[in-house]
Amino acid sequence: MAVVKAVGADGEKRKRPARALSQALPQTPPVADPIRLGDLSDFLGYSLKRAQLRIFDDFIGCVAPLQLTPAQFSVLMLVDANPDRNQSEIASTLGILRPNFVALLDELESRDLCVRVRSSNDRRSHNLRLTEKGRAVLARARKLIETRHEIRLRELLGDDNRELLLAMLGKIAREF
Amino acid sequence: MAVVKAVGADGEKRKRPARALSQALPQTPPVADPIRLGDLSDFLGYSLKRAQLRIFDDFIGCVAPLQLTPAQFSVLMLVDANPDRNQSEIASTLGILRPNFVALLDELESRDLCVRVRSSNDRRSHNLRLTEKGRAVLARARKLIETRHEIRLRELLGDDNRELLLAMLGKIAREF
Repeated sequence: MAVVKAVGADGEKRKRPARALSQALPQTPPVADPIRLGDLSDFLGYSLKRAQLRIFDDFIGCVAPLQLTPAQFSVLMLVDANPDRNQSEIASTLGILRPNFVALLDELESRDLCVRVRSSNDRRSHNLRLTEKGRAVLARARKLIETRHEIRLRELLGDDNRELLLAMLGKIAREF
Repeated sequence: MAVVKAVGADGEKRKRPARALSQALPQTPPVADPIRLGDLSDFLGYSLKRAQLRIFDDFIGCVAPLQLTPAQFSVLMLVDANPDRNQSEIASTLGILRPNFVALLDELESRDLCVRVRSSNDRRSHNLRLTEKGRAVLARARKLIETRHEIRLRELLGDDNRELLLAMLGKIAREF
């Protein structure tokens, strides 16, 4: 099947290429029929990934004034809830691989949000705690996410469905 | 709060460090109380990501004989359902950034699963189609995923809940 030239449904030539389906690729060529997803959207992994990407995009936009990624936010949340715990424990709880976690901590430390303190039990390992600035940034981030991001997800899904969704996701993460 | 030494609930010293929460970080030190997730699991983005990572891990294990990642599988699925479409259309439909998509195609092409064919409409762009081997590998992958992966997800969640989960994920991807 050859690529069909960009001609509108009424046969009139378009002056500009059709808008890309994603903003990620600006130079999308003229689009003919929409791409068919076929059975792909029936695979749970695919649908989960698409929803997760959308939610992360929105999350990043909502906390743009603070320049936090979802992973950075989750580290700040966990260190705040578990101060002075070993960095390996925090990394493994979040399922973040060691090299990625080290880079992430370097970034948080360079921004004075988090500090590594040498463990008194094991001089080779480090415990983590938030700085005063880290706690303040986390509080602002939580407020932005709750009031701009989670609230709109609640509106979209409805409270009951949101709870059901969280329960199913937790079940997959724990039991699958 | 200082890190508590590795002492069992009954006060007896453990002989070995507690098992790491994740297999990702083998050298986890002695663990005291479990890390508290706090409010983190109430954030939909966090729960989605954890479920997605678990599902991708399982997916990769199920298709291990074919050495396919979820992203490679989705490209094969989409090219199969839409042969001879421009590579930018496939990439943008999947939300994959251009540099990542080029690397992914290089890999698929080097394994003789997919070919890039110069577009007759636009000599600068390429259309994609599966090779015979690509179609055969995709068919085997689908069978493995359906019989080893998706079927267990169905059992875990139940058919109705699985449909509801897919519907909510689709709604987030399209409407959020």
